[in-house]
Amino acid sequence: MNELTSVWQVAGMTCGHCALSVREEVEEIDGVTAVTVDHEGGRVEVVGERPVSREEMLAAVKEAGYRLEG
Amino acid sequence: MNELTSVWQVAGMTCGHCALSVREEVEEIDGVTAVTVDHEGGRVEVVGERPVSREEMLAAVKEAGYRLEG
Repeated sequence: MNELTSVWQVAGMTCGHCALSVREEVEEIDGVTAVTVDHEGGRVEVVGERPVSREEMLAAVKEAGYRLEG
Repeated sequence: MNELTSVWQVAGMTCGHCALSVREEVEEIDGVTAVTVDHEGGRVEVVGERPVSREEMLAAVKEAGYRLEG
């Protein structure tokens, strides 16, 4: 299976709970197979079977209560 | 019903998720009827039918992953 990794920057995550909230929402994006979140660096790494669009990430991060940067 | 209010200081809460974690644990203390948490000030207000001991608060706050101060 082909895997695509993208890295995103998210503002406002202050702790592990915040990271978990973001991970849960991003994991729900269709085709996503793995999500790694570093709340200290605001870094979200997304692995999926297809490219994840900025619109999808915007919606997921907003749903979690945070802000997509960059 | 008689109500007793006590105020405690908790370190390490960085966001609303942290506040929720602490509230959930403190609410489980026997006799507690209401818990208000201000994560920015680290302030936890506990209302109950009886006095809540420091040991009970220590255990609840530790279970949530934070530290009771003072």
